Amino acid sequence: MSSMVQTLSSMANAILDQPTVIAVTVFVALLCACIVIGHLVEENRWANESIAALLLGLASGAVVLLVRKGQSSQVLVFNEDLFFIYLLPPIIFNAGFQVKKKRFFKNFSVILLFGIFGTIISFCLITLGAFLLFKKIGITSLTMKDCLAIGAILSATDSVCTLQVLSQEQTPFLYSAVFGEGVVNDATSIVLFNAVQSIDISDIDGLTALKLLGNFLYLFFTSTILGIAVGLLSAFGIKTLYFGRHSTDREVAIMMLLAYLSYMVAELLSLSGILTIFFCGIVMSHYTWHNVTESSRVTTKHAFATLSFIAETFIFIYVGMDALDITKWKESNASAGTSIIVSLALFALVLVGRAAFVYPISCILNCTKQGSEEIEIKKQFIIWWAGLIRGAVTIALAYNQFSSSGTKSANVDSMMITCIIIVVLFSTVVFGSVTKPLIQAVLLNNANPLTSRENDFVSLEDLRLLSLENGGPVDNGNNQSAPRRSKLQLFIRHPTSTVHHLWRKFDDKFMRPVFGGRGFVPFVPGSPRSTAGETSDLNNSN
Amino acid sequence: MSSMVQTLSSMANAILDQPTVIAVTVFVALLCACIVIGHLVEENRWANESIAALLLGLASGAVVLLVRKGQSSQVLVFNEDLFFIYLLPPIIFNAGFQVKKKRFFKNFSVILLFGIFGTIISFCLITLGAFLLFKKIGITSLTMKDCLAIGAILSATDSVCTLQVLSQEQTPFLYSAVFGEGVVNDATSIVLFNAVQSIDISDIDGLTALKLLGNFLYLFFTSTILGIAVGLLSAFGIKTLYFGRHSTDREVAIMMLLAYLSYMVAELLSLSGILTIFFCGIVMSHYTWHNVTESSRVTTKHAFATLSFIAETFIFIYVGMDALDITKWKESNASAGTSIIVSLALFALVLVGRAAFVYPISCILNCTKQGSEEIEIKKQFIIWWAGLIRGAVTIALAYNQFSSSGTKSANVDSMMITCIIIVVLFSTVVFGSVTKPLIQAVLLNNANPLTSRENDFVSLEDLRLLSLENGGPVDNGNNQSAPRRSKLQLFIRHPTSTVHHLWRKFDDKFMRPVFGGRGFVPFVPGSPRSTAGETSDLNNSN
Repeated sequence: MSSMVQTLSSMANAILDQPTVIAVTVFVALLCACIVIGHLVEENRWANESIAALLLGLASGAVVLLVRKGQSSQVLVFNEDLFFIYLLPPIIFNAGFQVKKKRFFKNFSVILLFGIFGTIISFCLITLGAFLLFKKIGITSLTMKDCLAIGAILSATDSVCTLQVLSQEQTPFLYSAVFGEGVVNDATSIVLFNAVQSIDISDIDGLTALKLLGNFLYLFFTSTILGIAVGLLSAFGIKTLYFGRHSTDREVAIMMLLAYLSYMVAELLSLSGILTIFFCGIVMSHYTWHNVTESSRVTTKHAFATLSFIAETFIFIYVGMDALDITKWKESNASAGTSIIVSLALFALVLVGRAAFVYPISCILNCTKQGSEEIEIKKQFIIWWAGLIRGAVTIALAYNQFSSSGTKSANVDSMMITCIIIVVLFSTVVFGSVTKPLIQAVLLNNANPLTSRENDFVSLEDLRLLSLENGGPVDNGNNQSAPRRSKLQLFIRHPTSTVHHLWRKFDDKFMRPVFGGRGFVPFVPGSPRSTAGETSDLNNSN
Repeated sequence: MSSMVQTLSSMANAILDQPTVIAVTVFVALLCACIVIGHLVEENRWANESIAALLLGLASGAVVLLVRKGQSSQVLVFNEDLFFIYLLPPIIFNAGFQVKKKRFFKNFSVILLFGIFGTIISFCLITLGAFLLFKKIGITSLTMKDCLAIGAILSATDSVCTLQVLSQEQTPFLYSAVFGEGVVNDATSIVLFNAVQSIDISDIDGLTALKLLGNFLYLFFTSTILGIAVGLLSAFGIKTLYFGRHSTDREVAIMMLLAYLSYMVAELLSLSGILTIFFCGIVMSHYTWHNVTESSRVTTKHAFATLSFIAETFIFIYVGMDALDITKWKESNASAGTSIIVSLALFALVLVGRAAFVYPISCILNCTKQGSEEIEIKKQFIIWWAGLIRGAVTIALAYNQFSSSGTKSANVDSMMITCIIIVVLFSTVVFGSVTKPLIQAVLLNNANPLTSRENDFVSLEDLRLLSLENGGPVDNGNNQSAPRRSKLQLFIRHPTSTVHHLWRKFDDKFMRPVFGGRGFVPFVPGSPRSTAGETSDLNNSN
């Protein structure tokens, strides 16, 4: 029997590439283990799936290292393509698809300020700090360009882990602010990183900076518009062609594929795929999702969440496993002391860089009352704290910068990668585990004032005034000036509410009749329209 | 603005590998187009999604060829790993998950005879034919081993396209026989192919043949047992740990990942992953699916179907695009005439090879009354006809055999690949489009005798007799011998029905209490158990 098995073993090598099979098997097995562990620690407030995945990845990296007798712990080589093409899109799409849209747009100004200006401030500070620091330590082989890259790399927060430690129900404002910032921040830091890699350092002047800002605004708007366009296309297509007539599978498939297509087209046109697919997700949940059959709604809601969940867990296992990449550690000739000092210094820069924009911007927002609610000092602290986690985007960018430089000394490059990995591991494990209990301790023990105040989005009085203006039953020629004045007052008092109300009017009158959406769904013969219990919870706040 | 876009273009190259982005974008766009076209031609009986995908793939291959000015039409290189690791598993798993289990097991003897002995007969005939043929044409550089490989390659039917042309509702017997044969055939032909590649041709004797048969049986049983074991593990795990308490996403994720793990472990142990994941799918739909929450049931049912559907369409686009691989055509110095003659000859061998086992085995089955129903000559014809389609498995194996041989003359190898591609394209387009109308014409215009007869699976009288034997209210010591005799009679008259009944008893008594399943589901608080309309259609015949 054993010779038979041996014959069979040699057979299998014939068709499939054995290392790939082993790598995939190991990763799938680890994913299963993570899910089971994540389920078992669900009620533990200190642990979560990300940390479990990271530690499991580290452990299996160690096992592989031992099995291969210290040669290499890499089962899969860290591949930016794998990360940016296959793993990131489902996560960001699902975030857009499941985000509470009303709250997101209510905090839009806060999100943009933190995400764009905050990231730029953080980038400048970290760059400057790194430049001075490396001079002081005596690492001379790093150029100014490397320092700029480090600034961009360490400005990229990790929105994936943040999603797990903040709760959309318990702290809705913080969730939408920190998570929204994370999405915009991803885009900003990748744009910054690309800019740093492409510009010529020798002639930086005001014009270059202005050009970069122009580039950024161009990227931001075109990416958003592309995402919205693809989302609307999917809504219109599904409403017009009515796929559900023949097969629910086609509806689910076309939603999935169009969302992914928006990301890939954005990448192809050198736009920000992350922004594109995020807005595509928002539009799809607002229009397309209402145009499909009942079972497609349930399927998309859960299938997208599942895919995103698998991709997240995969990333953390991957990062954990990759941390024990022995060749990098060997190449980096630095002593343990130097590595730790550099890592600590980098992490300190991250702390300072983030503090340098969270507190000032919060103060500005509080003074101008731009935000929907006041950001108290406690909340400012949590915003600062929750955004300190660094993750897979950071690692991907670090590999990109420091593994292909070629001419420069390889050991400094390797040291930079290992130090950045240390920062990522440390921040994920420490901040990932401490944040949840911290929020509980700081914010939630004072009789939940957060959630109760969230609900006065627009007062009943204001709504009554607006509905008068809409040509209600009391509307006649005489009192037209009064509501108009109060509309102006209302806009000053509640700018976002008014925008929201005007948007709703526009949406109901022009958009939904064309693109479908709640209440404008084509009639589906034989589909149980009334069983809405399953479906109404996705969009309870659009 | 244009310089800005140019700057941005150069930026994007920094992070992502541009060719990969282009390839993925093209494929996703083509997938979307296929879905829309497939929807539009749904009511057309001549066309279907597979053919649309194949033609679209051909067309875009031609466009790429023109754009690149005849250099290469390959956007993605044909990669067996991509096919066997990522595309095939979801298709076969979904087939097992959605198959009508009662019917499948009812026709199990038919399926095994066709799938194992049929494939072996076809393999022997095609090998012999190819050997004689190539001698006659004057192609001398192909060894006996190559001929054996051709036999294995061309014995692999395409179960994916067959699924699309046969309807589970209209022709249930044919569907389960041809599709079931396809699954077993895939496994058999891959085992044969591997065997051919690994054995030493010089000393073939009876012992080697016996050893191969032993290998095959070992593979068949261990693969099946592994699939069943993983399926039961998932059922037991989900029932015990009760993932739905915290998150439906975990349930869906663990089902998906465990199924995939079963495939990968089978491949790692050099078993037949196809058989393993197929049986894993069957067990999961029988037990696991009943243990998860309501929304997970809807999600898994549709999400697995969608993934399988996307993978199928992807394969056909891929095969179509790959057909215009200009380097292969150039390498093959053969004139168009020779290529066509070889292709026709190979296709003739496929026709004869299949006829040589379908008709004899059907006659044997009819004579011994082993099958659940008589296979009339018309049905024999359809079985023969529907199994002539060759698909992606054939192409994958052909690439494996003829692109890495190294020492031999490259032009004959290239000619073999191009000829096999011609056979695949021809059979898919012609048989794929003609089969549906042919079945309508041959079978379904005579007052639907097929479906009506299917229902007398076990007569009421037989069931009454069996229930008497089960210790019913009339059961007493005196008339014990009568039911026992009738049970024996019943077994002779309806062997499969009796096995099915005994299985049901065993299942209800031992399996379902442990592994869950219909009627043995743990209580889910807050889950709407009563809305079974959505869920009962998956397993309406387990």
